[in-house]
Amino acid sequence: MQHQLVRARAAARIASRLQRADKDRALQAMGEHIQLAADAILTANAHDLERAHTSGEPAHRLDRLRLDDSRIHAMVEGLHQVMALADPVGELIAAWNQPNGLRMEQIRVPFGVIGVIYEARPNVTVDTAGLTVKTGNAVVLRGGKEAFETNQALTAALRRGLEQADLPPDLVIMLTDTDRRSVDALIRARTFVDLVIPRGGASLIQHVVEHATVPIIETGIGNCHVYVDAQAKLEMALEILINSKTQRPSVCNAAETLLVHTAVADAFLPHAAQRLAAHGVELRLDERSLSIVQRNMPDTVWANGLFPLFTSVTAEDYATEFLAPILAVKVVASRDEAIEHIGRYGTGHSEAIVTEDGQAAHDFLTQVDAAVVYHNAATRFTDGFEFGFGAEIGISTQKLHARGPMGLRELTSYKYIVRGTGQIRS
Amino acid sequence: MQHQLVRARAAARIASRLQRADKDRALQAMGEHIQLAADAILTANAHDLERAHTSGEPAHRLDRLRLDDSRIHAMVEGLHQVMALADPVGELIAAWNQPNGLRMEQIRVPFGVIGVIYEARPNVTVDTAGLTVKTGNAVVLRGGKEAFETNQALTAALRRGLEQADLPPDLVIMLTDTDRRSVDALIRARTFVDLVIPRGGASLIQHVVEHATVPIIETGIGNCHVYVDAQAKLEMALEILINSKTQRPSVCNAAETLLVHTAVADAFLPHAAQRLAAHGVELRLDERSLSIVQRNMPDTVWANGLFPLFTSVTAEDYATEFLAPILAVKVVASRDEAIEHIGRYGTGHSEAIVTEDGQAAHDFLTQVDAAVVYHNAATRFTDGFEFGFGAEIGISTQKLHARGPMGLRELTSYKYIVRGTGQIRS
Repeated sequence: MQHQLVRARAAARIASRLQRADKDRALQAMGEHIQLAADAILTANAHDLERAHTSGEPAHRLDRLRLDDSRIHAMVEGLHQVMALADPVGELIAAWNQPNGLRMEQIRVPFGVIGVIYEARPNVTVDTAGLTVKTGNAVVLRGGKEAFETNQALTAALRRGLEQADLPPDLVIMLTDTDRRSVDALIRARTFVDLVIPRGGASLIQHVVEHATVPIIETGIGNCHVYVDAQAKLEMALEILINSKTQRPSVCNAAETLLVHTAVADAFLPHAAQRLAAHGVELRLDERSLSIVQRNMPDTVWANGLFPLFTSVTAEDYATEFLAPILAVKVVASRDEAIEHIGRYGTGHSEAIVTEDGQAAHDFLTQVDAAVVYHNAATRFTDGFEFGFGAEIGISTQKLHARGPMGLRELTSYKYIVRGTGQIRS
Repeated sequence: MQHQLVRARAAARIASRLQRADKDRALQAMGEHIQLAADAILTANAHDLERAHTSGEPAHRLDRLRLDDSRIHAMVEGLHQVMALADPVGELIAAWNQPNGLRMEQIRVPFGVIGVIYEARPNVTVDTAGLTVKTGNAVVLRGGKEAFETNQALTAALRRGLEQADLPPDLVIMLTDTDRRSVDALIRARTFVDLVIPRGGASLIQHVVEHATVPIIETGIGNCHVYVDAQAKLEMALEILINSKTQRPSVCNAAETLLVHTAVADAFLPHAAQRLAAHGVELRLDERSLSIVQRNMPDTVWANGLFPLFTSVTAEDYATEFLAPILAVKVVASRDEAIEHIGRYGTGHSEAIVTEDGQAAHDFLTQVDAAVVYHNAATRFTDGFEFGFGAEIGISTQKLHARGPMGLRELTSYKYIVRGTGQIRS
């Protein structure tokens, strides 16, 4: 592996000096070679699927792994979209002159070598390579073992594209070890790797945080809340809640807990429970919300068996990113209690308040400490594309370097260039 | 200690909402209380000095530890200088509207709780507290054991200042354990600490990198080079070299290795060796430079005993941050060899080229991967004050978040505030 990292470092050195046109030409060629290799990629993917099926992987994981012509086409389209974006490298962030005549410039530069650790979805291979090539970085990918053959086929095609464009193929390296030792080697390769981005579940992130010596960006753990304030428009609150919880429950920007102000709990919760029931969402309710829901739920809901399981909520539920059709519910006595609850259990990802009260919105937006705070909008918008970045490498939940959706710019660092005429320090 | 971290977190929450005027008032009061407590601080410092003297600390460490009226005055002046700086918190970094009507704002916010680990110099206590209060952060300080009583006295005064200004005194907390366990607890307190900045020698930085789970910023390891190109003005090169090496050899932006292009080695090295000799700098020379120096050194130098020890350089010397009057010297055949040497041995801190050749400068400035790259200026300018930041918390040698001198802005993160009218994702 060290051999591969040395090659990545050498490739990164070359890539740091490329112009946008060179990099866009490479992205075009990478797309063409993905398309050319479509048959081989689908064959490799069929092998991965067969093995995954045999080893008893659940259906939703098989679906994430599966490629077809339209998914391959989408990968190529993704590369074309990145081509259309501006290149952040070389941007002059700041420039000034010091009284002693020194000319100072702060210039955006690539990181160098970026490691990305991820799980089943093979499109991440192509998306990530596109973003790192565009920003003049080399990438060392460590994909999941389920997608092993697919990732190898994709990487081979990407590297042929780089070669065709006269760029070093080692700008995209896929590690062939898929055990945890390769993760550990990557996150401790301080001389060779400038940044590691782990994309995956909480256990992967936790492992990387614990063992990395390379700087990392933590991504994607989202225990997100929707808070329905005393002054909320309840119809709006209902749509925002349903969208945040049910539009795609398995992703990090989906809501996991509903907080309702006590003044509107009686009016809001029965409707919310019915709509959530229709979406098959299990509710985990605090004492107050449980009593409201039981008292107000129309008999027809029970009779139709529409209402799913509901149970008493625990502190552990409040701390859990369900990533599933489960919602914790709590009635709060005040906006401060809502803010405090989020401070205790939130993961700093995405938090929403629904209210018509400007002061309430102001307090929530300023006091809640999260990457993205929303007023009267669903938490689901925390996404590079929805933010208009045109791309996304992940959602940062740390405060160092980048926060929230990370696009091209977040894959760069900067350097200072200082020009003098012989200045020395006195 | 966890108790202290909980209090720091609560204080940070309050500080994040303060206006500049409140924070500047606190800085004023902190300075007044340092001045009021001058006698107690000097008494505490005398105890520390006595203990350090007894335990055999070397003179330069005693000097770093020693306070007197003028050093106390300088600390207070430092707080006043920070008062005069703009407050970065609340700055609107970017704002835009999405087609769906969402209003996006990217706003600069404090980190929250910052841990700072440092060694002997007690002024760091006051400087750091000034910078973190100004940026609305709470700071948990872990000073060195030599300065224990001094740091306690300084912190007590700073906290009285905060109280007088109606700010939570827990914005500045000094840990009372000075063993390594307190370092380890701080760098692993993920729930309570948002960022740790280690300021100190290579062994402290290495320990923190190895064991931290909190995000960190590596600082201050500077194996810096001066490269004298074939087209250098040799008089300018000599002044830049002497300044970079001898003005203050013990700091991170001092030069540790001289690289000389072969075309000017004969003309440059004898003069350089003489001037360095006069400054008592020991030279560690490669074969070529050794032979040039021996051949050209005037007999008077040897006769006067002016020339200090000189030895053959080793690869280990090239990799060493001497922080002392020692300079490694290498003759290189080309600019590329110089760039490659720096790539192999540099720590990404500060690197200088001296040349009149625009292409050579361009290549060096773009290809050398360091926080600050210089053309025709000394490496000693890598400093928050010399950059015009008005303050400095350290010099980052990593690429994540901040690079080079870190001032107030580098002590902040950002959040996205998104305002809608009921938008949901389709």
